[in-house]
Amino acid sequence: MTSNIERMAVAARELGVRVRPHAKTHKVPEIARLQLAAGATGITLAKVSEAEVFADAGIENVFLAYQVVAPAALERLVRLAGRAKLRCAVDSCAGAELLSRAAKDGGIELEVMLEIDLGIGRTGARAGAPACELAQRIADLPSLRLVGVYGFRGFAASADGPAAREAWGRAEGEALVSAAEDLRSIGLPITEVSAGSTPTALPAGSVPGVTEIRPGQYLFGCANVVAQGAMQAEQVALFAQATVISRPADDRAVVDAGSKTLSSDASWQPGRGFGYLASDPATLVMGLWEEHGVLRLGERSKGLRVGDRVSIVPNHVCSAINLHERLIGVRDDRIEVTWKIAARGRIE
Amino acid sequence: MTSNIERMAVAARELGVRVRPHAKTHKVPEIARLQLAAGATGITLAKVSEAEVFADAGIENVFLAYQVVAPAALERLVRLAGRAKLRCAVDSCAGAELLSRAAKDGGIELEVMLEIDLGIGRTGARAGAPACELAQRIADLPSLRLVGVYGFRGFAASADGPAAREAWGRAEGEALVSAAEDLRSIGLPITEVSAGSTPTALPAGSVPGVTEIRPGQYLFGCANVVAQGAMQAEQVALFAQATVISRPADDRAVVDAGSKTLSSDASWQPGRGFGYLASDPATLVMGLWEEHGVLRLGERSKGLRVGDRVSIVPNHVCSAINLHERLIGVRDDRIEVTWKIAARGRIE
Repeated sequence: MTSNIERMAVAARELGVRVRPHAKTHKVPEIARLQLAAGATGITLAKVSEAEVFADAGIENVFLAYQVVAPAALERLVRLAGRAKLRCAVDSCAGAELLSRAAKDGGIELEVMLEIDLGIGRTGARAGAPACELAQRIADLPSLRLVGVYGFRGFAASADGPAAREAWGRAEGEALVSAAEDLRSIGLPITEVSAGSTPTALPAGSVPGVTEIRPGQYLFGCANVVAQGAMQAEQVALFAQATVISRPADDRAVVDAGSKTLSSDASWQPGRGFGYLASDPATLVMGLWEEHGVLRLGERSKGLRVGDRVSIVPNHVCSAINLHERLIGVRDDRIEVTWKIAARGRIE
Repeated sequence: MTSNIERMAVAARELGVRVRPHAKTHKVPEIARLQLAAGATGITLAKVSEAEVFADAGIENVFLAYQVVAPAALERLVRLAGRAKLRCAVDSCAGAELLSRAAKDGGIELEVMLEIDLGIGRTGARAGAPACELAQRIADLPSLRLVGVYGFRGFAASADGPAAREAWGRAEGEALVSAAEDLRSIGLPITEVSAGSTPTALPAGSVPGVTEIRPGQYLFGCANVVAQGAMQAEQVALFAQATVISRPADDRAVVDAGSKTLSSDASWQPGRGFGYLASDPATLVMGLWEEHGVLRLGERSKGLRVGDRVSIVPNHVCSAINLHERLIGVRDDRIEVTWKIAARGRIE
């Protein structure tokens, strides 16, 4: 884990972009501190309740890359802004008006980032005229200060080898830089251009004009980023410990880790099930029930017996961590630290 | 919820089978008490750590329908057996020997149930000669008392209408009764035959010789049991409350409930996404990210605006509840109770 943090920090420094790790991956303030110590600008989060947990632990520079619109959440956001340096997200007039009113009523000014839709069918304003029109209206609202643009392009087409991933990531950076230019051309003082996720962060960050990247999964890696080639299997730093509880067939073992341990997030690569054995990547978790993982055994694992311990690399590290109360930190095969996953389940 | 509890209790009474609800669905001791008050024999759970939480709350009659084999878990199991009436599961010689040794060392006797493989490719011994041979070896082990058989047949082929579900459930009951007969024929005193899950519980329970059913999801229902016709939409009693945070397109809204709220469990019915709006079942959660649910809007929901509140029926109630800290109990539109999901995340 520490070498993953260092590697990303060095690569970003070389590219001249700031790193603002997405802390939804780990939800652990102590880990955010390690990322900040390695040079991160601040952290990224989604929900206000997550940010409260990190602020309680003294981590106060947060980009909430999320549209906060519910009255209770807005109230908490404004209160939190009194003790943390928050930057918020908008992608609609209606949402910006709610945020503006809440900030005005609370007597504060909020920095906001306009989300640009990078084509994944989720949130974000369409680049070009719609984004410009919306940005102008945001800029005219009281108590908001529009400072930048951000986006998330996902990973779909970045799976076909390093060249495709590089191109996909660069396109993400270019789209955001271009959106920022559009807004500057109508006179808006855009200084922040925030891109990226683990698969695209570095290529996006290599585009001149991108100021910040927001990778999360790079910290631990998981089956999905390995399947995609965005990280090497040797870099994976998070494993679910499980025990073989049944050996019903020669090519099948059942472990006590199911969807409530690994999450049921699908593989980005069809036919890869829900994770693999760290000791034998040919052994896949092909079946998943709440408390059962059904392993299809590769040749090297046919000797597994009831009671044997195994380490599983889950498909999606962020979802898997959110299911647990604690992370056990191991260095050189010795337990070094136990961290409470303090922001687990904070979805408000 | 209370009417779902009552309905299952009445139906089981009419069939003459005991109900031992699977409490993994709710993980809330107070709800288990309501189920017991309605006549349930005891509860079913998977993990020892879950059972500890329920025992702490005074609920002590538990069938652990799960193979406990890890040394730490066996130690906790034996300790727990000192204060609770536990029944445990076995499906292998190796596992039974571990259980027997732990019970012997702890100076206790454990009731065990032999799991029969009902063809879903998970745990369980094959019926017929393999099950008989294994059962005999279990019966010969010290400190274990083999009292019954159990199984879980899943739901796959029970989705094609009521007749198919009825047939599927009956086949489950018949397979277990037949396995019990096999064991009795070699002289083993099998008294318990435990079947079922929500889709199959009642048809399985209608088979003479089945003594107990273990439904879980019936308590609340979810998109999957409704899609399958095992429950009616009107019976669904659990909803995730969410807020529309973005309206990026005419036919699309984004809500603040993603896989960390609903779970990413797949639909049993292809093309149904990850849940639906309670107010409009034609509006489906078709896209899911950790903190975003992307709704494909049906005609009735095209007017949804940023800030609107919606109620979502998740695909799988058991996984969804495990992601949260509390359940809010509502009756006649008023909040009546807040329950802590006390056994949330107990996977050991």
